[in-house]
Amino acid sequence: MAEKRIEIEAVQIDCASGEQFEDSFRAVNPDCVVPALELDNGTCISEVVAICHYLEDKYPEPALMGTTGEEKANILMWNSKIEQQGLSAVADAFRNSAKGLKGRALTGLIAYPQIPELAARGRGRLEEFYHRLDRQLAENSYVAANNYSMADISAMVAVDFSAWIKVPLPEELANVHRWYESVSSRPSAAA
Amino acid sequence: MAEKRIEIEAVQIDCASGEQFEDSFRAVNPDCVVPALELDNGTCISEVVAICHYLEDKYPEPALMGTTGEEKANILMWNSKIEQQGLSAVADAFRNSAKGLKGRALTGLIAYPQIPELAARGRGRLEEFYHRLDRQLAENSYVAANNYSMADISAMVAVDFSAWIKVPLPEELANVHRWYESVSSRPSAAA
Repeated sequence: MAEKRIEIEAVQIDCASGEQFEDSFRAVNPDCVVPALELDNGTCISEVVAICHYLEDKYPEPALMGTTGEEKANILMWNSKIEQQGLSAVADAFRNSAKGLKGRALTGLIAYPQIPELAARGRGRLEEFYHRLDRQLAENSYVAANNYSMADISAMVAVDFSAWIKVPLPEELANVHRWYESVSSRPSAAA
Repeated sequence: MAEKRIEIEAVQIDCASGEQFEDSFRAVNPDCVVPALELDNGTCISEVVAICHYLEDKYPEPALMGTTGEEKANILMWNSKIEQQGLSAVADAFRNSAKGLKGRALTGLIAYPQIPELAARGRGRLEEFYHRLDRQLAENSYVAANNYSMADISAMVAVDFSAWIKVPLPEELANVHRWYESVSSRPSAAA
């Protein structure tokens, strides 16, 4: 939204106090997960990739999800890899170890107990993801090619969230460091 | 592809014997995961959602990913929910319990040991997913609304894969059964 300079009224949901489980938010997303976008006709769209796709369709400039079929597929491919290899690794590590999330190892209504082995595996997978990203960025300015895209935003979020579990970017991954400095200094990164 | 009557040369990769880890396939997808689509210019697209998006762009009829921005977002939203709530539940249950997958709890090159608690959790999550699907199908002919879409294909695959872990659809979920009979009897379901 910041990259596209879109202003949409934002309502903060206090997940720490469980507001996502209250009836008012369940009417927005029955799966009790943020974020969600409420359209003017009352329809609610949840899931980050779907919200981004909707906003890209409605506000095409600047394009963050590609312009040709091949670019779009490449960006969606990278976004999916980042979700599975990066964001889910951070989530596994954090949700299965944080004291405040006992019985909340997964988002949603059901109370799943933490699995300590999953926290350890998440930390290892995140390290692996950083190396994967470095190999990709050795030959590309940005994650999904030579233009800034949604894939960079997702990967930056994975790196930022990694502070929660104290798995910093390894010093030696020069390509990721160069890229991270570039993407995190964009005005939108502060949004 | 079958729904759109697209014919593309298919190359089977024998994952049971580890062909996805060989150099020839790593050149296609360095993450060693099937499926992947090789374009005429040599570019390779992996990740199901990205491949489907590419094919939808190139062969728009019949539309399987929506026609308006809102429809597209709704279908992507459901596809993402199905991946996270359904397909990942089946994968967790199967990969963390199958004897032939010891040390292969995750796709990719790194050997992650099985976590038995994750297998049990996956079975529980799959049951929860079936109920979620039933609530959605109580008010909709198809998963993402009243038209057949990619979301139905993904959800059908989750139900079909559940045979591997012997977690059948509960008898009482009449809406899912009605929907499953409809989608699995399409000619494309045999493809």
